[in-house]
Amino acid sequence: MGDAIRARRHALKMSQEALADASRINRTHMGEVERGKRNMSIIAVMAVASALGCSLSELAGDAKL
Amino acid sequence: MGDAIRARRHALKMSQEALADASRINRTHMGEVERGKRNMSIIAVMAVASALGCSLSELAGDAKL
Repeated sequence: MGDAIRARRHALKMSQEALADASRINRTHMGEVERGKRNMSIIAVMAVASALGCSLSELAGDAKL
Repeated sequence: MGDAIRARRHALKMSQEALADASRINRTHMGEVERGKRNMSIIAVMAVASALGCSLSELAGDAKL
C-alpha cells in the first residue's frame, strides 16, 4: 500500500509533509506508511486516499490488494 | 465496510463465527466490524477479504469507499 500511496503522491508532485497534513496523519507515521512499516487503520487510509483524490478501492487496486 | 462484509458473507452462506475464525479475528470484534462499530486495520480487512474470496479493492468497491 505504501508504494501505491507514494506513486500517487509523486504523480501529484505533493510532498510527504503536505500529504500527512492533508490526511491529518503524523508526518513521521506517513514516512513509515510509505515504507510499509505501519499497519494503518481503514479510516486513516481512506483519509490518505481522499487527500490523494482517489478512493480506497482505487488505491488498493493500485497496490494489487 | 461492515455492510459489504456482511453482504458477501451472506452470499457465501457463511456464519459470522466461521468468517471470524477464517480471518483469525475475534468473534466479538467481527460482530462489531459488521455493525460498523470497529475501525479495523488494513491487514485485518485484507484477512477478511481473503476469507470471503475477494480482494480489499473489491470489498472497498462494494462499500463505495
